[in-house]
Amino acid sequence: MAARGRTRVAIQGERGAFSHRAALDLVGPDIELVTTLDFDALFATLANGGADKALVPIENTLHGSIHENYDRLRSSTFHVVAEMRLRIRQCLIAMPGATLGGLRRVASHPVALAQCRRFFAEHPELEATAAADTAGSVSEMMRAGDPSRGAIASRLAAELYGGVLISEGIEDDLENHTRFLLLGTEPEPAVGVSKTSLVFTLKNEPGVLHRALGAFAGRGLDLTKIESRPLRGRPFEYAFYLDLVAAPDQTSDEALAELRRLSTELRVLGTYPEGLRAGTQETNGG
Amino acid sequence: MAARGRTRVAIQGERGAFSHRAALDLVGPDIELVTTLDFDALFATLANGGADKALVPIENTLHGSIHENYDRLRSSTFHVVAEMRLRIRQCLIAMPGATLGGLRRVASHPVALAQCRRFFAEHPELEATAAADTAGSVSEMMRAGDPSRGAIASRLAAELYGGVLISEGIEDDLENHTRFLLLGTEPEPAVGVSKTSLVFTLKNEPGVLHRALGAFAGRGLDLTKIESRPLRGRPFEYAFYLDLVAAPDQTSDEALAELRRLSTELRVLGTYPEGLRAGTQETNGG
Repeated sequence: MAARGRTRVAIQGERGAFSHRAALDLVGPDIELVTTLDFDALFATLANGGADKALVPIENTLHGSIHENYDRLRSSTFHVVAEMRLRIRQCLIAMPGATLGGLRRVASHPVALAQCRRFFAEHPELEATAAADTAGSVSEMMRAGDPSRGAIASRLAAELYGGVLISEGIEDDLENHTRFLLLGTEPEPAVGVSKTSLVFTLKNEPGVLHRALGAFAGRGLDLTKIESRPLRGRPFEYAFYLDLVAAPDQTSDEALAELRRLSTELRVLGTYPEGLRAGTQETNGG
Repeated sequence: MAARGRTRVAIQGERGAFSHRAALDLVGPDIELVTTLDFDALFATLANGGADKALVPIENTLHGSIHENYDRLRSSTFHVVAEMRLRIRQCLIAMPGATLGGLRRVASHPVALAQCRRFFAEHPELEATAAADTAGSVSEMMRAGDPSRGAIASRLAAELYGGVLISEGIEDDLENHTRFLLLGTEPEPAVGVSKTSLVFTLKNEPGVLHRALGAFAGRGLDLTKIESRPLRGRPFEYAFYLDLVAAPDQTSDEALAELRRLSTELRVLGTYPEGLRAGTQETNGG
């Protein structure tokens, strides 16, 4: 049972997942973590009161925007209340007392294994084996108690399950970051430099996207993201994801009103403190 | 040895991968397939003459644009010569003579397993087990010769490795499509309705994206994709991916010239026949 007053934060994945690390860094070390099996369960947990907040990965520097989570966000009534960027730093983890020379098989999610190809090329004696997820490969290794087995996961997973770090930062590409959004059921006041995230669809008229961006460009509002996405079952129609740097004020209200006149649908996903500046919210997973 | 004159098409993954299906549908049934372990090897194979063409997944309706492949394309000198969209239809495959009731363990890549959660919820007697890839889980099942094992992969994988289809289309979301680009070392003349794909970075000036889109909007040229992407190590600077529907002619040349004046870098990735119209290039994987 959680102590009264601790924030219950839902993530997708197990304890020790990169989402868990992001939740600790963004919300604080004294959260009550709620783990869910998949993203549908994650959104349902927030909707049915099983958590106070939900942390959702929304884009990755290597793999792009996670459209299925934009879809869930767009069809929900949740509000984005914070964002953060986590560096995905892969660690080779083994049993206490194990050594790199004694390892034979290393398990992880295939996406994590693929991010560490150079490491495996340098250690041809190691056999990479697929697992359902990163943190789970550590807990399973610990349960098996086999010092010839290793796992690739976050440093947090090593700490939580009692494994030891054999090697840290074994991913090929050091520019592997995932952006997370923290969702709540109510908006929260954003102070200081703020971002606003929008999803909208435009009327099917020539040049309408150009005019839509004019609503912001004409008022000196900076965009930090724009992305089009074909709409299901509606050929030649698109949804757009847009982030702008602007605290809610009269200028941004006017820009949104102008955009609304050009849109067939528009949902403000939330206004929240800007959390992606270089050097802030960076973590090495430790 | 391949017969002289067959087009050698490189893919990432094994025979029977969804990329293999896409290569057959887009280039034709009589290709010589060249399999590569990862995307770096795929691009290297085209560069070193180990294949005539390379087929690259570039975006997926659920998972978004594959930024790492845009990066590889942007830093290459290859040309996009065709595109297609493949429906990702997951099939449950087993040994000849096996039945659904006799299956106990079903292997596949965790992403494919996650796309079939409803199927596993309806069949709680089946244990999902992680594998390095979809087609490989079929070939391994066949080698093991165990009728209690199943695998989730394309219909093509069942055909190639001698498995039988127990169930077809078991994915939760029927709107799961991957867009592939066919790359060559030389441009090819595009006839009829054509698309042009661009990657560019803009001068850091207020409203510059709005002006950049004006180069196309002012000439009545339709965009089918726009996406921003933060540049590595250059805070507040972005690369943009843009697709427009336009055969090369004076109008599109003028638009590109105007865009070039606003850009710090611009690369035309290719002009190629439009292959994503509703109803065309659709396949059910069979």
